[in-house]
Amino acid sequence: MSDQKKVLLAFSGGLDTTYCSLYLKELGYQVYTVTVNTGGFTKEELDKLEERSRSLGSESHSNVDVTEEFYQKAIKYLIAGNVLKNNTYPLSVSAERVFQATAIAKEAIKLGVDAIAHGSTGAGNDQVRFDMIFNILCPEKEIITPIRDKRLSREEEIQYLIDHGVSGNWEKSLYSVNQGLWGTSVGGKETLTSDQFLAEAAFPSQLKKTGEEVVEISFEGGEPVGLNGKSLTPVQCIEQLNTIASAYALGRDVHVGDTIIGIKGRVGFEAAAPVILIRAHHTLEKHVLTKNQLLMKDQLSLTYGNLLHEGHYLDPVMRDIESFYDSTQKYVTGTVKVHLAPYRFYVVGITSEHDLMQSSFGKYGEMNNSWSGEDVKGFSKIFGNQNMIYHKVHQTDE
Amino acid sequence: MSDQKKVLLAFSGGLDTTYCSLYLKELGYQVYTVTVNTGGFTKEELDKLEERSRSLGSESHSNVDVTEEFYQKAIKYLIAGNVLKNNTYPLSVSAERVFQATAIAKEAIKLGVDAIAHGSTGAGNDQVRFDMIFNILCPEKEIITPIRDKRLSREEEIQYLIDHGVSGNWEKSLYSVNQGLWGTSVGGKETLTSDQFLAEAAFPSQLKKTGEEVVEISFEGGEPVGLNGKSLTPVQCIEQLNTIASAYALGRDVHVGDTIIGIKGRVGFEAAAPVILIRAHHTLEKHVLTKNQLLMKDQLSLTYGNLLHEGHYLDPVMRDIESFYDSTQKYVTGTVKVHLAPYRFYVVGITSEHDLMQSSFGKYGEMNNSWSGEDVKGFSKIFGNQNMIYHKVHQTDE
Amino acid sequence: MSDQKKVLLAFSGGLDTTYCSLYLKELGYQVYTVTVNTGGFTKEELDKLEERSRSLGSESHSNVDVTEEFYQKAIKYLIAGNVLKNNTYPLSVSAERVFQATAIAKEAIKLGVDAIAHGSTGAGNDQVRFDMIFNILCPEKEIITPIRDKRLSREEEIQYLIDHGVSGNWEKSLYSVNQGLWGTSVGGKETLTSDQFLAEAAFPSQLKKTGEEVVEISFEGGEPVGLNGKSLTPVQCIEQLNTIASAYALGRDVHVGDTIIGIKGRVGFEAAAPVILIRAHHTLEKHVLTKNQLLMKDQLSLTYGNLLHEGHYLDPVMRDIESFYDSTQKYVTGTVKVHLAPYRFYVVGITSEHDLMQSSFGKYGEMNNSWSGEDVKGFSKIFGNQNMIYHKVHQTDE
Amino acid sequence: MSDQKKVLLAFSGGLDTTYCSLYLKELGYQVYTVTVNTGGFTKEELDKLEERSRSLGSESHSNVDVTEEFYQKAIKYLIAGNVLKNNTYPLSVSAERVFQATAIAKEAIKLGVDAIAHGSTGAGNDQVRFDMIFNILCPEKEIITPIRDKRLSREEEIQYLIDHGVSGNWEKSLYSVNQGLWGTSVGGKETLTSDQFLAEAAFPSQLKKTGEEVVEISFEGGEPVGLNGKSLTPVQCIEQLNTIASAYALGRDVHVGDTIIGIKGRVGFEAAAPVILIRAHHTLEKHVLTKNQLLMKDQLSLTYGNLLHEGHYLDPVMRDIESFYDSTQKYVTGTVKVHLAPYRFYVVGITSEHDLMQSSFGKYGEMNNSWSGEDVKGFSKIFGNQNMIYHKVHQTDE
Repeated sequence: MSDQKKVLLAFSGGLDTTYCSLYLKELGYQVYTVTVNTGGFTKEELDKLEERSRSLGSESHSNVDVTEEFYQKAIKYLIAGNVLKNNTYPLSVSAERVFQATAIAKEAIKLGVDAIAHGSTGAGNDQVRFDMIFNILCPEKEIITPIRDKRLSREEEIQYLIDHGVSGNWEKSLYSVNQGLWGTSVGGKETLTSDQFLAEAAFPSQLKKTGEEVVEISFEGGEPVGLNGKSLTPVQCIEQLNTIASAYALGRDVHVGDTIIGIKGRVGFEAAAPVILIRAHHTLEKHVLTKNQLLMKDQLSLTYGNLLHEGHYLDPVMRDIESFYDSTQKYVTGTVKVHLAPYRFYVVGITSEHDLMQSSFGKYGEMNNSWSGEDVKGFSKIFGNQNMIYHKVHQTDE
Repeated sequence: MSDQKKVLLAFSGGLDTTYCSLYLKELGYQVYTVTVNTGGFTKEELDKLEERSRSLGSESHSNVDVTEEFYQKAIKYLIAGNVLKNNTYPLSVSAERVFQATAIAKEAIKLGVDAIAHGSTGAGNDQVRFDMIFNILCPEKEIITPIRDKRLSREEEIQYLIDHGVSGNWEKSLYSVNQGLWGTSVGGKETLTSDQFLAEAAFPSQLKKTGEEVVEISFEGGEPVGLNGKSLTPVQCIEQLNTIASAYALGRDVHVGDTIIGIKGRVGFEAAAPVILIRAHHTLEKHVLTKNQLLMKDQLSLTYGNLLHEGHYLDPVMRDIESFYDSTQKYVTGTVKVHLAPYRFYVVGITSEHDLMQSSFGKYGEMNNSWSGEDVKGFSKIFGNQNMIYHKVHQTDE
Repeated sequence: MSDQKKVLLAFSGGLDTTYCSLYLKELGYQVYTVTVNTGGFTKEELDKLEERSRSLGSESHSNVDVTEEFYQKAIKYLIAGNVLKNNTYPLSVSAERVFQATAIAKEAIKLGVDAIAHGSTGAGNDQVRFDMIFNILCPEKEIITPIRDKRLSREEEIQYLIDHGVSGNWEKSLYSVNQGLWGTSVGGKETLTSDQFLAEAAFPSQLKKTGEEVVEISFEGGEPVGLNGKSLTPVQCIEQLNTIASAYALGRDVHVGDTIIGIKGRVGFEAAAPVILIRAHHTLEKHVLTKNQLLMKDQLSLTYGNLLHEGHYLDPVMRDIESFYDSTQKYVTGTVKVHLAPYRFYVVGITSEHDLMQSSFGKYGEMNNSWSGEDVKGFSKIFGNQNMIYHKVHQTDE
Repeated sequence: MSDQKKVLLAFSGGLDTTYCSLYLKELGYQVYTVTVNTGGFTKEELDKLEERSRSLGSESHSNVDVTEEFYQKAIKYLIAGNVLKNNTYPLSVSAERVFQATAIAKEAIKLGVDAIAHGSTGAGNDQVRFDMIFNILCPEKEIITPIRDKRLSREEEIQYLIDHGVSGNWEKSLYSVNQGLWGTSVGGKETLTSDQFLAEAAFPSQLKKTGEEVVEISFEGGEPVGLNGKSLTPVQCIEQLNTIASAYALGRDVHVGDTIIGIKGRVGFEAAAPVILIRAHHTLEKHVLTKNQLLMKDQLSLTYGNLLHEGHYLDPVMRDIESFYDSTQKYVTGTVKVHLAPYRFYVVGITSEHDLMQSSFGKYGEMNNSWSGEDVKGFSKIFGNQNMIYHKVHQTDE
């Protein structure tokens, strides 16, 4: 029986994790690899990753699919909360990292490894998200991050691989792209500046359609459950809407945000389905929720988005906020029409049996029978009463 | 000397206030009229309004211009706070009503009238905003609202005018439009439904340009002070940006919101300059403010926008929040490039000497010299410490 | 069959509702009365109220007990949220009015009356709370408020009763007292000033004990379920704790608050059990919840308390916040020792299996084995990183 | 000229910093010491500290007094914001650490030392607060923390001192006490448990008075400026009130809080003046501020207190919130009477020319002339309008 130490490596097949794979073996570890799919890999890509891992000498490789879990435990609430970080970014990568890390931790516990390795560098958010989840779920396992610890440059990594006889097309691709169910992030030379937008070619989906169309999204209890009258699971709904909408080159932007480690970071993204679904869902909510619900949801979403971004998904307050969201979504049922055209979309309108803007209860701009002008006059007087008193008390000062 | 009672009528020259003008005279009042310009009237329109008022028998008519005051006391803070009601609507009408009402109250005090009249109906927000400001600033003056009190229909008003020999082209225009410096609101048959978007023709500015261009907006202490390198006053900046951008049919949407009186109301708007300025300003802020500043600003803006919308501009808490905003804007200085094209725009990037994303302090995605991988490892451990403990304590439950 | 109109009068047996009872008959109504008990009436008092009502000529009188419902639907959440209005007042009266009004509305619907009457004056909160609940639950029923509408003085009411041959000891009692399960409010000549405290004699419970004792309160899922080791229902727990603690003259204060109608109002209160339970519960929470849960709870409680105070209990956002609270209380189980002495108490400490301050996970002030000094050093560096950068960028300005 | 490295040691004369002093010399450093007074040291104590430092072989010792700065830059805002962490703790130590660290950093820059040393252990908040401020203000200086890094036990330190011939009465005092202008913290064996209160003898001020008295505190623009009619500076006001009130053994409690490093920590405190001043100030505010101001202040204070506690005082958002506070305090002028007795106090009432509870504007419980019962009826109808509609739309579901 071997007394070799075992390590589980989070494996993507890129330069960094290929390096780690060899380096860990050299350190004397038995290397196991795992790839966690959050909706961004095809079957073929996953098969290739497994093959690649084995060819690098791993003991075993697992592909774990958490797409459905990712929807049920995070995306559902990102929609319910209309969560856009700094009113811009649908937290595409932030959210999926949590579920990748959790799946890796479970795999590590199952395999009984001594350590977990990941290929993060020392300047981004992901290192913190991975470290934190591992520390929380399996604090007894060592965490190894060769790229971060050795401050390796790309060139050094490539040289190391060449020296070890590992072939690969390592010439730096112009853009680093991370794809998942809830959007794709894109980094490249422009995102290292403050003043340039990403080149058109940097976005994974190119404009394919030139006309326009209206798509009808069905929501039930806040969840997307159909497109153009056809019932779908929420995951299917996101995938199919993304196919339709990304052909119009929608949901693109560049966001500058605060990394967990305090520096500012700029990231491009393409997230057609997320951006459209949130806008559509929010419009439906404006029709069916009270103003107090809308306001409180906006306040809570600031916190929910920030905590998720900073890797605090496992804090129990997140479960508490999700209970709040679940309660608010009771009547968020109806259909939303969205108009799509190249590079732009807008919400046409909504239909819902829970719409509070029903003509029988008074129309904006027209008079209603359940109250009188006198009622509103009285309301206005009392509603402004405290400020009337305030201004009386202080009128000599002003 | 006459013992006739005097009334000051807020006059727009439309059907409602024309009706009020005659009706108030019939009630025995000496009628004075006033029109308050918040940036939506031309000199010619104002001259015509004065003429019209006199022809209806008013004692006098005043045109009061509050455009600059409107900017200094409200728009400046709507930009500083990136205020979009429900993340959509720049509060175009909500904000200007306060300054109109305040100017009317001052005029009423100056003229020594016994009453103030306005043409509001009983179903919108404006009646409350006007009533409240008058109750606060001149509580001793009676408020008269004939259209609201008598629940008059359009047809009844027209018949009344015909009976009194007042000519006019009163056939109902398809859309009611309200224009000011901070945007134009549009109501019509579509906004009375929940499921239709406004017709293209309903928007005041039609698409005039087909190409694309980049406009460079300069901010100083959070205020817009230049376009494409040319220094301007903030009011000029808004006006000129609006001219440039509305040619691309930008800043349009339909918003459904909560009226102060509790019903849901839908309103179309076209606000090219407001929407672009807020997006540009916000992007600049994301580069120069700390994450705590950005988060706190988002929280306060929810309150600032809601209170302004509901007519509570005179509450002293609004001055307190403005002091907060003033403090935050100290370093919000720089230029923002915005790409304009038909129906869409995006922020290209920013340049600022206060940019916290300077390469000397670490680049997102690249390693920094002021901290090590060990530092981040320690950070991640401590940052997740409480949840590590929490999960240890509760691990048997889960 | 009679075509007389029917009215249901909320009846307390005091001067105001005795007046209303006669006055409504004189108006031609068949008068039905109802008294809703939220824990402040004894069986004997309720029997006397029924007798009194019948002697005044009512068609029928009902006594409705909502004490348990009041606990389940409000007090439970006031404890969960540690709700003290302006950090002072346990919302004793505010909360119970909702359940009184709801019970009255249901009774009115059951009896099929045409109108509901209540004895509120025109200067307090209760008029609004009653009106609003009635408008929401049975908008078709007329609301009659004789005291408010006729602006009656106490003397006029007494004269009216004398004229109608109704005897009673109407000499003004020095203090108006309102008692329920969640505390007693007291108004009197001092509360009409800003600078005087209530006289000792004004408080319903006088000091009866001079020693000191420690009481042990058991919580389960955030609810009080036992005293000194004896299992109780939450309602019993509140009642018995109140008996014990009010003998020490605890839970007294005078609060100045904002009425719903905009004026400031001062109210004395005695609420021994509520004040102690909230303090005890909060201390337990500080041991078992994470800091993010504690902070978010504090934020939500500001809103929950304000909306409840202003009569918006029926807004669905209240149910959403209650779902949040329910989720947070999962582990709020344990016992809390409270030291009682005349006029003062303090929390001694807590015991809970969910205590996050367990010695095995690091002691405050002593070193822990799961992290090193280097970890904290790294943490501090990264935790302050953004401000380090901020101060570098701006150091020449300061 | 010497090429010895220089270190500035934050010196308190206790076991830890005495150890550090010797240890740093042994490491080859020239040792400079500094003691920063935030109001807790007398002249005699400071003189002794200097003498002690020199006797341990330091190159020089400085005593820096930041009491006034501490008031102007922090305490003033803790009063303005009524800041009590978790509604309990006046942040006595948290706040003063910032000003101590800032003064040390300035001294270090002035002396041109290579490193700063402090005696913090690895389990508390202070290590993070010190590290962070030093990293921000002088990131180029090394930070040395021997006690934390070497995980030294008290016994090891004592043995080391004995071995080096340093005499001292190092037998462990039962309680560690930290005193400053804004309160005294106390740690001891009880605070290491969850269920015991501090022994009476542990509190620095023992009960000295048995009667009762009323003290009158004058506020001007939110600052305490007088006691019992005598004008004082705010610092004098705090000191003198503390002398008066601590004779009644007031302002004591035990708080359990979240340390910055994630563990729960319990701390006793005695802070008579802070607790009384905040309660008095808050009561005055409830009379002179609007409800929107009170609510917004409560929300901001949660953030201000948390950020201060966690060492983020230098984040610019703190300056922004202080601007907000400054604006709110404009009319917080008046006198507050507080009743003191052994172990308890209450606010009797306030007098202010800015009191919004003036009888001329309506009295709580009595009718007002500026509005009618009809006005309130209309108000209640409109105020509950949205929920009326909501319940109509959903009535079949419930």
